[in-house]
Amino acid sequence: MNGTVYMPVKCIFGKNALSDNASLLSALGRRCLILTGGSGAKKSGALADAEAALEKEGIGFSIFDGIGENPLISVCREAGEAARKTDAEFILGIGGGSVLDAAKAVAIYASNADLSAIDIYKREYKNKPLPVALVGTTSGTGSEVTAVSVLTNDETGIKKSISGDDCYAKIAFCDAGYTSSLPYASTVSTALDAFAHAVEGYFTNKCVGPVMLWAEKCIPMIYEGLKELSGSENISDELREKLYYGSVYAGLVINTCGTAFPHPLGYVLTENYGIPHGTACAAFFAPYIDRCAVFAPEKTEKFISMTDSLEKVKAVVASLTDLRGISIGRENAEKYALRWQSVLPRNFAASPGGLTQEEAAEILAEI
Amino acid sequence: MNGTVYMPVKCIFGKNALSDNASLLSALGRRCLILTGGSGAKKSGALADAEAALEKEGIGFSIFDGIGENPLISVCREAGEAARKTDAEFILGIGGGSVLDAAKAVAIYASNADLSAIDIYKREYKNKPLPVALVGTTSGTGSEVTAVSVLTNDETGIKKSISGDDCYAKIAFCDAGYTSSLPYASTVSTALDAFAHAVEGYFTNKCVGPVMLWAEKCIPMIYEGLKELSGSENISDELREKLYYGSVYAGLVINTCGTAFPHPLGYVLTENYGIPHGTACAAFFAPYIDRCAVFAPEKTEKFISMTDSLEKVKAVVASLTDLRGISIGRENAEKYALRWQSVLPRNFAASPGGLTQEEAAEILAEI
Repeated sequence: MNGTVYMPVKCIFGKNALSDNASLLSALGRRCLILTGGSGAKKSGALADAEAALEKEGIGFSIFDGIGENPLISVCREAGEAARKTDAEFILGIGGGSVLDAAKAVAIYASNADLSAIDIYKREYKNKPLPVALVGTTSGTGSEVTAVSVLTNDETGIKKSISGDDCYAKIAFCDAGYTSSLPYASTVSTALDAFAHAVEGYFTNKCVGPVMLWAEKCIPMIYEGLKELSGSENISDELREKLYYGSVYAGLVINTCGTAFPHPLGYVLTENYGIPHGTACAAFFAPYIDRCAVFAPEKTEKFISMTDSLEKVKAVVASLTDLRGISIGRENAEKYALRWQSVLPRNFAASPGGLTQEEAAEILAEI
Repeated sequence: MNGTVYMPVKCIFGKNALSDNASLLSALGRRCLILTGGSGAKKSGALADAEAALEKEGIGFSIFDGIGENPLISVCREAGEAARKTDAEFILGIGGGSVLDAAKAVAIYASNADLSAIDIYKREYKNKPLPVALVGTTSGTGSEVTAVSVLTNDETGIKKSISGDDCYAKIAFCDAGYTSSLPYASTVSTALDAFAHAVEGYFTNKCVGPVMLWAEKCIPMIYEGLKELSGSENISDELREKLYYGSVYAGLVINTCGTAFPHPLGYVLTENYGIPHGTACAAFFAPYIDRCAVFAPEKTEKFISMTDSLEKVKAVVASLTDLRGISIGRENAEKYALRWQSVLPRNFAASPGGLTQEEAAEILAEI
């Protein structure tokens, strides 16, 4: 048996995870900066619960609510400054993937006053980041449990991630209840992202031993959720639980396994055509799973036993993936394939059978 | 869904885990103290592999080979001094549970010169312990992945554990190959310990969600191994793998769930009658599983589906548990029950249905 287990984030799953475990926050410091985006933290009830938990523990706090979608490095730096000015000893990020990713960067800026916005990518700074606690309010990113933070360079508009052991949160409070105010469309898009994490991670060579247990747990959970979403726009609490806890397990999977080619090809659709990230990755599920069937037949058999026939799974994913009006064309496809093959070669290599730049261009041109 | 995931040790499973991942040691320091016991580290081949790995990475090292069974706090302190004198920046523990437990204590003494032997139990010291890497050579303890270190007070002869976030190793290299020189009797006793971890952890209330996956993985692995050991003294490589990786998964389980009453009652047999730890815990498997059947019928059904009928499982465990000549008697039983109920009340409480001091005395008197 081979494989690895490593999860330095203390992840607490379940109803009232935050309220019932408020005392854990005391170990992080006596004052914190709460980081949120638009209205998600409020609507979900997570912000109120966090404030109550902090008050109960006698921890002072300020709020920075300016984190937008695709968080800008300049805004993260600004939040870091806010943390310093308010003497925050830790960061509490509450929101979807953008806020959770941003929290990891804010913690770095907060303890390194002289770090310019752009220099965060160099990953050279003197002081350890502030400790971070995270509360997720969407069911897709898995950012709660990964060391990755995807940030957008204001000047170029290009997304680039930072990652490393010092980017892990100390604690993640994982409560599906906080996803209950998420509208149907966002629920679908984020669920597709979680499914992409689970399936892409599952088919990499790193998905063996202990990590396989997580993958085999979340693939059927999220797939069942997608089938229900495909059939009806009503979302029950049980469905929310499947999708949210499935997304956290999928985060545990990619934390060890990483993702494969649907992710970089998805970035093309997001960056250039404004398609939400999860939907954009799902656009490449069919060509991906078809290659898996050829190059990883045994794992594919197991995948089918956990879900449905590949045709059925592809149909479910396609029914939730709206790409109307999008056409990439041959010339653009080649340009994008060249770009992403050079930015994320490991995602191409991690796909069963690998993927050449030419093959990537073929797949993109089909959209 | 409820539960937690937390595993700050980077655990690398598989053949050549150490040799293939030598570069990870470089992150821990430029010089180390190798800690071993008697001959296990040498015989297993782990010591030679460790020396080669350190040399390959240009990491200097010294060896302290004086850790005995049931490690004494005085010896751990002495090893800590050896680490300081040789400017070790990290500790590399190679051996069975005694050595792995000791390594965690040595790391504390090494960075705290003024800490007296006995004061380690107070857990008050100024400096962070040195980083620790561990290589296990027996299939029982699971100490590779837990924050627990069981130490013996030289003066009283009493065992007492320390634990906490700063007791976790940074890295565990988990390679079943290093258990292949372990004699049959030790293989049986340590396998019984691993089974006790898996089963006691499984029936606690904390065994839910992500941790349940680990429990469900290792219970059938170790049980199959015990059945094979019961049938023949020949131990194949495949059997070694089941037992070793099973014991690491079981370590992951107790790291979250802890153990139940067979452990403290087992300490009675070890402390007072010289019975090896695993065998001593196994002596209480039958009364334990009988209580589980009454107080946790659903989990017991699942347990049976992963193993055999309870009668059969009890018979397999009993066939490997040699208690000939041991008789506790009513008076001693009451004394021991009183002692351990006060030392480890949480183990009594964590058992399905709980266990009163009187019930513990009953069970002990049956031996």
